[in-house]
Amino acid sequence: MATRELLTDEDLDPAAREVFDDIRATRGTDRVNNFWRALAHDPVTLKLTWERLKVLMGPGALDPLTKELIYIAVSTANACEYCCHSHTAAARAKGMTDAMHDELLAVIGMAGMTNAIATALQVPVDAAFDVGQGAA
Amino acid sequence: MATRELLTDEDLDPAAREVFDDIRATRGTDRVNNFWRALAHDPVTLKLTWERLKVLMGPGALDPLTKELIYIAVSTANACEYCCHSHTAAARAKGMTDAMHDELLAVIGMAGMTNAIATALQVPVDAAFDVGQGAA
Amino acid sequence: MATRELLTDEDLDPAAREVFDDIRATRGTDRVNNFWRALAHDPVTLKLTWERLKVLMGPGALDPLTKELIYIAVSTANACEYCCHSHTAAARAKGMTDAMHDELLAVIGMAGMTNAIATALQVPVDAAFDVGQGAA
Amino acid sequence: MATRELLTDEDLDPAAREVFDDIRATRGTDRVNNFWRALAHDPVTLKLTWERLKVLMGPGALDPLTKELIYIAVSTANACEYCCHSHTAAARAKGMTDAMHDELLAVIGMAGMTNAIATALQVPVDAAFDVGQGAA
Amino acid sequence: MATRELLTDEDLDPAAREVFDDIRATRGTDRVNNFWRALAHDPVTLKLTWERLKVLMGPGALDPLTKELIYIAVSTANACEYCCHSHTAAARAKGMTDAMHDELLAVIGMAGMTNAIATALQVPVDAAFDVGQGAA
Amino acid sequence: MATRELLTDEDLDPAAREVFDDIRATRGTDRVNNFWRALAHDPVTLKLTWERLKVLMGPGALDPLTKELIYIAVSTANACEYCCHSHTAAARAKGMTDAMHDELLAVIGMAGMTNAIATALQVPVDAAFDVGQGAA
Repeated sequence: MATRELLTDEDLDPAAREVFDDIRATRGTDRVNNFWRALAHDPVTLKLTWERLKVLMGPGALDPLTKELIYIAVSTANACEYCCHSHTAAARAKGMTDAMHDELLAVIGMAGMTNAIATALQVPVDAAFDVGQGAA
Repeated sequence: MATRELLTDEDLDPAAREVFDDIRATRGTDRVNNFWRALAHDPVTLKLTWERLKVLMGPGALDPLTKELIYIAVSTANACEYCCHSHTAAARAKGMTDAMHDELLAVIGMAGMTNAIATALQVPVDAAFDVGQGAA
Repeated sequence: MATRELLTDEDLDPAAREVFDDIRATRGTDRVNNFWRALAHDPVTLKLTWERLKVLMGPGALDPLTKELIYIAVSTANACEYCCHSHTAAARAKGMTDAMHDELLAVIGMAGMTNAIATALQVPVDAAFDVGQGAA
Repeated sequence: MATRELLTDEDLDPAAREVFDDIRATRGTDRVNNFWRALAHDPVTLKLTWERLKVLMGPGALDPLTKELIYIAVSTANACEYCCHSHTAAARAKGMTDAMHDELLAVIGMAGMTNAIATALQVPVDAAFDVGQGAA
Repeated sequence: MATRELLTDEDLDPAAREVFDDIRATRGTDRVNNFWRALAHDPVTLKLTWERLKVLMGPGALDPLTKELIYIAVSTANACEYCCHSHTAAARAKGMTDAMHDELLAVIGMAGMTNAIATALQVPVDAAFDVGQGAA
Repeated sequence: MATRELLTDEDLDPAAREVFDDIRATRGTDRVNNFWRALAHDPVTLKLTWERLKVLMGPGALDPLTKELIYIAVSTANACEYCCHSHTAAARAKGMTDAMHDELLAVIGMAGMTNAIATALQVPVDAAFDVGQGAA
């Protein structure tokens, strides 16, 4: 159960309906997933979120699949159940193979481990990491 | 300041020294960064962590740069100051351009936003995301 | 399923029963929600938690509804499923309108975004934010 | 130190300069804080973030101060050092008194406590919290 | 539902099967829990994770039960539903009494509270906590 | 710098001064660490927090050192810089050896890893973990 009712197509006000139309057209599917149905109570946030997401997750300096992997990584660390599911599905739809998924999980796990150890140790940041000194 | 003293090369026991030698040889630099110096009190965890990291972050189903981007994403969501710095430096060393960095930040930010909204709404997971049904 | 059995009224020891009586009297309902039933194994923590919550969430320098909004914000960022549900229900009971809920979600989402970006960038804190200098 | 250089006014490209001009005009101060200077490398995200923030944090169904309190709450749970500082300063500038700050901290702390206990107990969500049943 | 199919014994490749055999032999039970079944798609990570866990969670400078309590604490703060359940079950199997569970929850809750308050206040670290000065 | 001024002994109101006296008497040291100095603006929360902490972290079903290890674990996962420092110092003062610290870090790291993997995989909880079925 959600903390806000999922809206059906019939429930939508015209501004939200327009966003749903664009989601359908962009994705080439009639299905609009639950995140948008729960967010549709607020057409302003719905529209801003969808339009930014649509552009941002498209091709750019990073390819769309890489962006989905990054999205899964953040969603995992934030323990967002819904987002782990939705973005794993999206990554698969964009070409994530099982081998890529395996490696993604291993990297996320490794980061979870070393993040915890570095934080527990409160390791001071190396001067060499400073911007402008070149990386290491 | 750290919760554990950073070890100098002189402080290392032989098992830790071997790991440091391998870090230097692998990375082609004499510098060993502070994370390893804080972890070197425990040569077993030091060795397991380094050896796994070395293999995992190399080429595979995902390329090394993509893995660093994923690492930054997790480190950010875990609020690990040290890891944000060290892996941003590593990503740059592996070819992350400013344009890629810009997009990485935008995706991490977007994920932070939709993760929060999806969690606050407690959006139920769509049946269509179920493994074996094909993604959407 | 919980990691600890939910206690029925019959299971309660006298100290826990007293707390349940006060929850019922304070809230004017016979229902005692699951959080207290799971916590009731430990009457000391039950009593301290309930009595502090009762006073703290009442009127003060901040009004009760504002406090519930803050509670939802923390619960979301901590990904506490139960608390997202229970405090959204509580906020509604204290007068949160749909329009307020919309804005709350938008602010929580925005904070999730800029928190992530600020952390990834490791932005140094402005001297002007220092206490005693006046804010900005 | 940041993972990205803080831009001075001289470094800005025209699109970023326009955003800085609007920040100054809106806030009535010449100072532009570090978050925007670190983000200014990417004028698109800079502009979208600022323009959304400007509208969202203004008056609405919730008053501007309440929104800042919510922002502090999220920033705390996300352990965003920069954001804890910047939004505490902003809340003070919008009228947060010491007594309000005291209560805010107490509520954030209480939520941190009950979030942890509810998660450790994996308390099942009460049916009564379901949307449409009225809250409790 | 998981983001990856849970493998049955029949699905396992030989390397994963060996790990399952060792899990069964080590734990003296035929049951292999879902975590390993979901991870078994990647025999390398499966093997490394299991073998490290087996050694690490055994007797050492800390006793096995204390390690499980620490594991529950981390899992709670990371909001890992699965891990809260699996490690609470493991702790009970290793001797955690109800009274110990009560205290564990109280300490986790207290830490959740003071963590939040210390972060919101951005309390500067006391010089006395520095390593080498002796603790306080 | 903190978001709230650290109070000196001269700044304290009588109720806060009483708490400081008890901190000093209980700990047998004249030093009162910064957390309490930042919290002292609110004598009510100061007193409730200190008095609960004093009792809770003393001997009980779990010994005081074990409780400090649990506290470090939570503080790490919550990325609370101050708390990582203060509770590592406290654990050392209560007898944590270097070998115990090594193991603590390894367990925290391992939990960080498997938490992340279990969340990314959204592993369904085994029926066998249900309370009342006996653990596994």
